[in-house]
Amino acid sequence: MKTVCIAGVGLIGGSFALALRKAGFAGRIVGVSSPETARAALACGAIDEALPLPQAAASSDLIYLAQPIGRILQTIRVLDAYLAPGALITDAGSTKFAISEAAARHIRRGRFVGGHPMAGKESRGVEHAEAALFRGRPYVLTGRDAQLESWIERIGARLVFMDAAEHDRLIARTSHLPQLISTALASLLVDEDKAARVAGPAAIELTRLALSPYEIWRDIFSTNSTRIDDALTAFIGKLEQLRSNLCDPSMQAHFEKAAAVARELRR
Amino acid sequence: MKTVCIAGVGLIGGSFALALRKAGFAGRIVGVSSPETARAALACGAIDEALPLPQAAASSDLIYLAQPIGRILQTIRVLDAYLAPGALITDAGSTKFAISEAAARHIRRGRFVGGHPMAGKESRGVEHAEAALFRGRPYVLTGRDAQLESWIERIGARLVFMDAAEHDRLIARTSHLPQLISTALASLLVDEDKAARVAGPAAIELTRLALSPYEIWRDIFSTNSTRIDDALTAFIGKLEQLRSNLCDPSMQAHFEKAAAVARELRR
Repeated sequence: MKTVCIAGVGLIGGSFALALRKAGFAGRIVGVSSPETARAALACGAIDEALPLPQAAASSDLIYLAQPIGRILQTIRVLDAYLAPGALITDAGSTKFAISEAAARHIRRGRFVGGHPMAGKESRGVEHAEAALFRGRPYVLTGRDAQLESWIERIGARLVFMDAAEHDRLIARTSHLPQLISTALASLLVDEDKAARVAGPAAIELTRLALSPYEIWRDIFSTNSTRIDDALTAFIGKLEQLRSNLCDPSMQAHFEKAAAVARELRR
Repeated sequence: MKTVCIAGVGLIGGSFALALRKAGFAGRIVGVSSPETARAALACGAIDEALPLPQAAASSDLIYLAQPIGRILQTIRVLDAYLAPGALITDAGSTKFAISEAAARHIRRGRFVGGHPMAGKESRGVEHAEAALFRGRPYVLTGRDAQLESWIERIGARLVFMDAAEHDRLIARTSHLPQLISTALASLLVDEDKAARVAGPAAIELTRLALSPYEIWRDIFSTNSTRIDDALTAFIGKLEQLRSNLCDPSMQAHFEKAAAVARELRR
């Protein structure tokens, strides 16, 4: 692997670039971004050079798509024409099914392996990029590639393999549903003037995700709506079950099962 | 105020005793608890003496009920016979309507003002009690009493006044609903073997409350079931609204409104 192209040098793309360097990657890193972002990425040493996609893709062994999901889909639709034969394409989009489908349809000369690094920060942008962002965090791949896997391990992430559909189903439950729950809970308190005066840690904690900007969720919702719908149905079913057992001794068993899962998530 | 009786010298009762001392209370603090808890409370200096309820109540100007809700209800049913005339009774139960009703029915010789300090810790028991537990935290009172208000301010809490029904309606939304949400979300992941491998901060954060032991919730559910039911209905309504607008531009407005509330809660 001599040249890596990072399309979308924001927090994730920039951190991947810095992490590669720190892990010993000695080749060239080319960024594809807006002029402003490219300047910032050059300034903080995340990339060696900024180029338009056609030139950047043509000279790269690995093309890392770290744009918003909608832009990743657009890039995949035009990318094949620019690829060096045999190039590896991966992405960091937080839904995988729509992207994998697009890649299967449009990428012929290269090979696509979907990815989802489970890492992030409140602050976005390459200025906040850091080499340690992926350290200890899960990194989902929807396929195998020895060289890519080796670099992901070298940047300190924990490899997890699952297919795109399974990823999207699971992430709908562990990430997209929590976002909607938090937004719904905060919405419920809109007209409660005194809520802020009595809100304890529970309300604070469960409404934190509601602070997320919609712009990062638009594409997630549009590319995973069926599975999010399923997750909502299942979750509302659980709430109804708790509601109908609210004053019943069986609630103890519900609590114990749920606590066991919560502990397991913390292992 | 010369003598204070703390019934139930656990985390809250013990912390209230320590906080009173630290705020300059120079009178006697008598504890009513099991022999084991009483020993621990004496050992850490939270109380000066342990007595059975009849003797403790008879000599006290303020009786502070810091037991579980079910025990508070039991105590209120028998307390009147022991009271010195004019004694003030308050409590720290996390629902207020059932307790206020019981007090209105059973307390004749003393005066009852319901309370709910919005403070706590993961660890329970008087060993974890601390004088600073209430500092900066809301402390709801369902009535007025100049002396009680003055001590609550001196221990550093922020006084909030609301009647018992309003308290229970609001707390159903800011505390009881979040607990059920967390338990329901964790339950949803029971059979998801791979969930723990991809769970990010969102899933971790939203399942923390699911670790709460059922024993502290049993009495809350049984004394606030109607309002919890209302809160669940309203919350499920919000989820359904988000679901039906999932890929609609109107989601942006939902997100913005919810984010404004979440920011307000953090003020």
